[in-house]
Amino acid sequence: MSLHLETRFCCVCGHAITRRIPPGDSRERDCCDACGAIHYRNPRPVVGTIPVWGEQVLRCRRAIEPRYGTWTLPAGFMELGETAGQGACRETHEEAGARIELGPLFSMIDVPSVEQIHIFYRARLLDTDFGPGAESLDVRLFQENQIPWDDIAFRTVSTTLRLFFEDRARGIFGTHTRELAPRPLPGKE
Amino acid sequence: MSLHLETRFCCVCGHAITRRIPPGDSRERDCCDACGAIHYRNPRPVVGTIPVWGEQVLRCRRAIEPRYGTWTLPAGFMELGETAGQGACRETHEEAGARIELGPLFSMIDVPSVEQIHIFYRARLLDTDFGPGAESLDVRLFQENQIPWDDIAFRTVSTTLRLFFEDRARGIFGTHTRELAPRPLPGKE
Repeated sequence: MSLHLETRFCCVCGHAITRRIPPGDSRERDCCDACGAIHYRNPRPVVGTIPVWGEQVLRCRRAIEPRYGTWTLPAGFMELGETAGQGACRETHEEAGARIELGPLFSMIDVPSVEQIHIFYRARLLDTDFGPGAESLDVRLFQENQIPWDDIAFRTVSTTLRLFFEDRARGIFGTHTRELAPRPLPGKE
Repeated sequence: MSLHLETRFCCVCGHAITRRIPPGDSRERDCCDACGAIHYRNPRPVVGTIPVWGEQVLRCRRAIEPRYGTWTLPAGFMELGETAGQGACRETHEEAGARIELGPLFSMIDVPSVEQIHIFYRARLLDTDFGPGAESLDVRLFQENQIPWDDIAFRTVSTTLRLFFEDRARGIFGTHTRELAPRPLPGKE
């Protein structure tokens, strides 16, 4: 879940990039003075699910960085040509080998510090025939009181899980929007 | 609202791109064999609002392509470093000169054919001191029965407006997700 790569050359013609404000714009962009291309960059959607089996929620233990070894919900970058829901199903299958019935949109969490929006859907597992994909060390079902809250990979995941259990306790599921402020740097306030 | 530019050169080092499946991946990516960079591409979020003044909804007449001269809701590509809601407010101010109080998330519409997700928020105009920005020919308030439905810029806008008026008639506003199928090509089925 890294930031965009630094742009130094035009990906269309290979000429060096000039960082400037194009006519009619108000922001600096990566502009190519050779071919005229303007290379816009935009936040990237991350899509995932909260897969449920009865009272239990499926979670994956990460086999990749960042946050190797911590627990997460199945989620990943949305690909071109798919919908957010299709991407969430794909990630659930890739990371947890799980087949689901996709439910409603549950959370949309802005993470401007890493230029992402995290989008989670509720989901119902169709069976318990799941298992870790290449990016997971382990995949398991958890009761709410079994979840190690201090060992969750990302704040969007812990936020989504807390909202999910709150809604479940109330008996009404909503759609939630949140924004994650940047983490304070070590040694800073 | 165009598709991504074609990538032929590495934007990090300027070397020619090779289109191949990286180790551990399942999709072809733009790979650089010189510096090792992998250039992922992802769908782009478009963010906007449904600004309301009493019974009326604010709309903008487009001064830019695509769909020059047609009517739309204020919306545009989300920028790095902002939240979806901040982007929606920014676009509303840039295109319509309008100051709003942002409301809840209203619609999230996938448009995989153009590699976008369109996200609209409900909003309340703070005053009627609005006017066209550089990308608008005109900005006006419309009653529901004044809206020319055949002259709307994008299907995500007409879909969002229809859902909005349906919810308003029911007296309950929800959060809606939809997917737009590609338009049939002229001469095709």
